[in-house]
Amino acid sequence: MKFSKLASGLKASEIREILKLTTQPEIISFAGGLPAPEFFPIEELKKVDVAVLEKDGRAAVQYSTTEGYLPLREKIAEHMKSSFGVDCTAEEIIITSGSQQGLSLLSQVFLDADDVVLVESPTYLGALNAFSLQGPKFIAVPTDEKGIIPEELDKILQEHGKNVRLMYVIPEFQNPTGITWPLERRKAFLKLVEQYDFPILEDDPYGELRYDGEKVPSLKSLDTKGQVIFLGSFSKIFLPGLRVAWMVADPVILDKVIKLKQAVDLQSSTFAQRQAYYYMTMYDIDAHVKNLVEVYGKRRTLMYNTMKEYFPKEVSFTYPEGGLFTWVTLPEGMDATEMMPKVLEKKVAYVPGGPFYPNGGHRNHFRLNYSNMPDDRIVEGVKRLAEVLKEEVAKLK
Amino acid sequence: MKFSKLASGLKASEIREILKLTTQPEIISFAGGLPAPEFFPIEELKKVDVAVLEKDGRAAVQYSTTEGYLPLREKIAEHMKSSFGVDCTAEEIIITSGSQQGLSLLSQVFLDADDVVLVESPTYLGALNAFSLQGPKFIAVPTDEKGIIPEELDKILQEHGKNVRLMYVIPEFQNPTGITWPLERRKAFLKLVEQYDFPILEDDPYGELRYDGEKVPSLKSLDTKGQVIFLGSFSKIFLPGLRVAWMVADPVILDKVIKLKQAVDLQSSTFAQRQAYYYMTMYDIDAHVKNLVEVYGKRRTLMYNTMKEYFPKEVSFTYPEGGLFTWVTLPEGMDATEMMPKVLEKKVAYVPGGPFYPNGGHRNHFRLNYSNMPDDRIVEGVKRLAEVLKEEVAKLK
Repeated sequence: MKFSKLASGLKASEIREILKLTTQPEIISFAGGLPAPEFFPIEELKKVDVAVLEKDGRAAVQYSTTEGYLPLREKIAEHMKSSFGVDCTAEEIIITSGSQQGLSLLSQVFLDADDVVLVESPTYLGALNAFSLQGPKFIAVPTDEKGIIPEELDKILQEHGKNVRLMYVIPEFQNPTGITWPLERRKAFLKLVEQYDFPILEDDPYGELRYDGEKVPSLKSLDTKGQVIFLGSFSKIFLPGLRVAWMVADPVILDKVIKLKQAVDLQSSTFAQRQAYYYMTMYDIDAHVKNLVEVYGKRRTLMYNTMKEYFPKEVSFTYPEGGLFTWVTLPEGMDATEMMPKVLEKKVAYVPGGPFYPNGGHRNHFRLNYSNMPDDRIVEGVKRLAEVLKEEVAKLK
Repeated sequence: MKFSKLASGLKASEIREILKLTTQPEIISFAGGLPAPEFFPIEELKKVDVAVLEKDGRAAVQYSTTEGYLPLREKIAEHMKSSFGVDCTAEEIIITSGSQQGLSLLSQVFLDADDVVLVESPTYLGALNAFSLQGPKFIAVPTDEKGIIPEELDKILQEHGKNVRLMYVIPEFQNPTGITWPLERRKAFLKLVEQYDFPILEDDPYGELRYDGEKVPSLKSLDTKGQVIFLGSFSKIFLPGLRVAWMVADPVILDKVIKLKQAVDLQSSTFAQRQAYYYMTMYDIDAHVKNLVEVYGKRRTLMYNTMKEYFPKEVSFTYPEGGLFTWVTLPEGMDATEMMPKVLEKKVAYVPGGPFYPNGGHRNHFRLNYSNMPDDRIVEGVKRLAEVLKEEVAKLK
């Protein structure tokens, strides 16, 4: 039996294998990107489910359109205005089965083998997986603590700009680094890329989860050319298991995406789309987000302060203003993947940083998630991590 | 902005455009493939939704595994034995977002550009769309009223067998023809393909909807080599809008499919999978199917008898023993696509047959669906169709 080139290149995700190890309840896992289940609005969902079937009846479980449930797309258009400063209509929105599907659809719509994709370095592993299916070449744009460095991007564009087919960025609470681009960076970025006609994919699943600092306008809200494609999601602000997310794009792009989605899975769940819609109609999703912000913000601060107190001074880490992750940098020469068994022995888990770099290397980092652990386990887990780090740093001397 | 080769080749589905026209309530539509909503178990679903949240709580809406909810896969393994005669375990099953996703995943796993795919002629349009994304060459295997003709397949295999990368078949109540392969055809088929190592994709969304005649063993149940991949679905026997279907395949194949699905959409809806599982646990799905069989069988018979009474004798059509469709053949020279406006003028709709043929031609067919219209509209719709047919046939003379 012969597999396709694509299938022959598929490898097990390192994260996936690690997450399997970390599902035992005794492990303090900072590895996943899971929202905290204790804040899922379960009681509200029970009422939502009844409303969906009482009000929409059989239409709620019948086949429906590929682009998605119109009233939900209209609600999302309002939400794009109030939460992301983006003026758009339902016609510019398609519902996807999670943002991961948005990534894979756009990968298929824009990329052929050996095409050039620009990404932050590091960047979201799941996006690299989706793009990799088409076999492109990744060029990693260097970043600092404020995101992509305009001068570095400029150099890359001078050399490769004409061949770039897609650029993927997470300007808000980036996965994996937790970094946010300040406004001046965003403006400088757009000024550079506007000279080219490749699409910018702005992935923003965490944008509403800001714990401090000023809200910064999304790239999509600053885009005057229709060059930015925006991915938003209910996974982090409502419920990940429904698999309801959305894409905002120029209608010419959306037309391709809709036709592709029809061949790929016909449509996303009719029922789940209405669960999201009725939740937004019956309850105040912004108030729910506000509660999440309060809890996650405390956890973020607790993890940061505990790391500051216990981690050896040779180890640095980011201070995320929002989102789910902080990014830890070990001294050069240390390897977070090799350190994993020692960490797991202490019943703690993280995600090693290597796989977040499209072209390898950079193994002296790991990602920590703070949204999914209660306070006492955050403190205990960070202390255990600190023990391993101290031992390992000592070996370097 | 440059699109990929794949995106440049995307065209609007003819069916999709037609279905848009036929959503007005005054149209008697035989065009879709919709199950009858009046038999959706809505009251049961209300109880199921409560049970999902009461019993599984937050896990029912959290992220979960790519392969799908284990208890559901175990239930499906039992169902595969009782309904399709297939011995398999949960480890051989992945949950997909509808069978359409199964088709597109397998397309990516097996096909590169210009690879050879064997299909029935005609065959399911949605499968052609999914395979077409990889740019393969289709070879249409001639069929008669008993399905694929072994002698014709033999000839094709002699010439192309070594280059075939995938064969797609619907042996049970085929879409679009309604034809079922008898046992001896299935055996002859397997004897031929067993000499090669390409996978056979058996798509069986309607297999449980048999109205008369003897149940025939599925290809998967007769397969001793692990060559057959089976696609089953809840869309026609439970609820299409949940988008829950399954694939049964050899673990080597499934491993590729799981890794690909992770990059494509991470997982299918956690909640919808549990809706299907709890429905199967709390209610008797076979009893529900039995009710559907009774109603759809009557509609099938009514449509067939009405066509027999009113259609001009130059027009022929199939007698489906199950499933959702009958296939109408017009005299050579007639064109069902060109006839569409006249039919729509009479407020009736069908799907023209041309798009079901991978390599074009064969425009003198159309597909009728009988599951989604009540008795009186079936009779009225067929009569109106008959009027157009008589006029058009008369023109040929």
